[in-house]
Amino acid sequence: MNIFTAGILIIGDEILSGRTQDTNANFIAKNLTSSGIKLEEIRVIQDDKIIIIESVKSFSEKYNYVFTTGGIGPTHDDITSESIAEAFNKKYETNLEAFNILEKYYPKGDFNISRQRMAKMPSDVDLIYNPMTAAPGFKIKNVFVLPGVPKIMEQMLKDVLLNLDKGKPKKITTINTDLYESKIASSLSDIQNQFFDCSIGSYPYFNFISKQGGVNIVISSWEMNSLDEIEKEIINMIKFNGGNYSIV
Amino acid sequence: MNIFTAGILIIGDEILSGRTQDTNANFIAKNLTSSGIKLEEIRVIQDDKIIIIESVKSFSEKYNYVFTTGGIGPTHDDITSESIAEAFNKKYETNLEAFNILEKYYPKGDFNISRQRMAKMPSDVDLIYNPMTAAPGFKIKNVFVLPGVPKIMEQMLKDVLLNLDKGKPKKITTINTDLYESKIASSLSDIQNQFFDCSIGSYPYFNFISKQGGVNIVISSWEMNSLDEIEKEIINMIKFNGGNYSIV
Repeated sequence: MNIFTAGILIIGDEILSGRTQDTNANFIAKNLTSSGIKLEEIRVIQDDKIIIIESVKSFSEKYNYVFTTGGIGPTHDDITSESIAEAFNKKYETNLEAFNILEKYYPKGDFNISRQRMAKMPSDVDLIYNPMTAAPGFKIKNVFVLPGVPKIMEQMLKDVLLNLDKGKPKKITTINTDLYESKIASSLSDIQNQFFDCSIGSYPYFNFISKQGGVNIVISSWEMNSLDEIEKEIINMIKFNGGNYSIV
Repeated sequence: MNIFTAGILIIGDEILSGRTQDTNANFIAKNLTSSGIKLEEIRVIQDDKIIIIESVKSFSEKYNYVFTTGGIGPTHDDITSESIAEAFNKKYETNLEAFNILEKYYPKGDFNISRQRMAKMPSDVDLIYNPMTAAPGFKIKNVFVLPGVPKIMEQMLKDVLLNLDKGKPKKITTINTDLYESKIASSLSDIQNQFFDCSIGSYPYFNFISKQGGVNIVISSWEMNSLDEIEKEIINMIKFNGGNYSIV
């Protein structure tokens, strides 16, 4: 079966300094997973032309789809578009359609030189329309270039995903138990060894106030048509060990 | 001046599937910045031995310090420690000090084989103690291996940072203005061009309900002793354009 893979590049010094907690990667991740696209890597990189060029090139070769966020605004530190033009040996020039969209959006006289910069892109791109603040993103080869402002990015991503070749969504079931991870670790490992087409993840949690803990067991598979058999095995194992369970 | 650099590796399929919003990278980022360590890259990678080995090796060569989170628990999907042993051509074996700590921590009879797995590490490491749930992390070369559970990781990181060679903290000032980004973009670019030792970042925001927006202008420098001069220039520029400002 054909699995479509993806990588995300978050471009922004403000994430690396810790000033901003990134939420874009998680939003994109969730939407890719439910769309049947397997996200294999997220990188947060500096606002640095050489680093952007290298990362975009390597991701574009490695993954079916690449999503970038950040660095397409009107200021001097917005260098994503020109870097991506260079990565693909394209001219960095005014996109007429983007220019017209922006010119129509702003009140007469407000479409100044800085704003006009937002119409500059690599040549031969497809625009990704922005229903909120007009300034479009773009698609070049398999790379989707999106803004960093979460609300705007989220809207644009949803449109992008509608028109993308996708696989079968990943099947996922989560079973919660009040047993501790180490109690079930070896049984879980045995069950994993019976089923190669799925992955069984084990995510312990512990509440330091109530001193209660447990595990979320996440069964997931891109290939299988049903997880019922594995689910049953795990529930039996939990019961056998005297634990409670619920399907989350 | 010596600048210490760092990279973070977040190891975990649950982040890539979107199931979990990572907060560890942001916590580490903030603490590195305030400790005078420059974070240059964050990568979120799959629970895959070959990928972990390659990423750890390349980060260890590229950055002064590397921080990993995730994959050091007792279950079959916890493969960080054995992967890192392999990355550095070390044996993967029981660390006696870690074994003793864990044995003392658990009630008699509860220190089972799965839990004993948490004492297995590359040979010749320094332990990173865990004041909450006993299971230690470790340091090997310039790589600090930490757990994925945020509360525990955060405590352990703070101890690690106390004893690390660090640089001068980064100087940062944030100026907020109600002017739109595109209004000040070219002036900001002119100011940036006068000061090469600092970076001026421009982070627009927009409230879609109140329809009010503005920009946070972040001036930062690892090298300069004072940002006062740049701050003054930016404030004058805001006033000149008829905007209000505040230091955030």
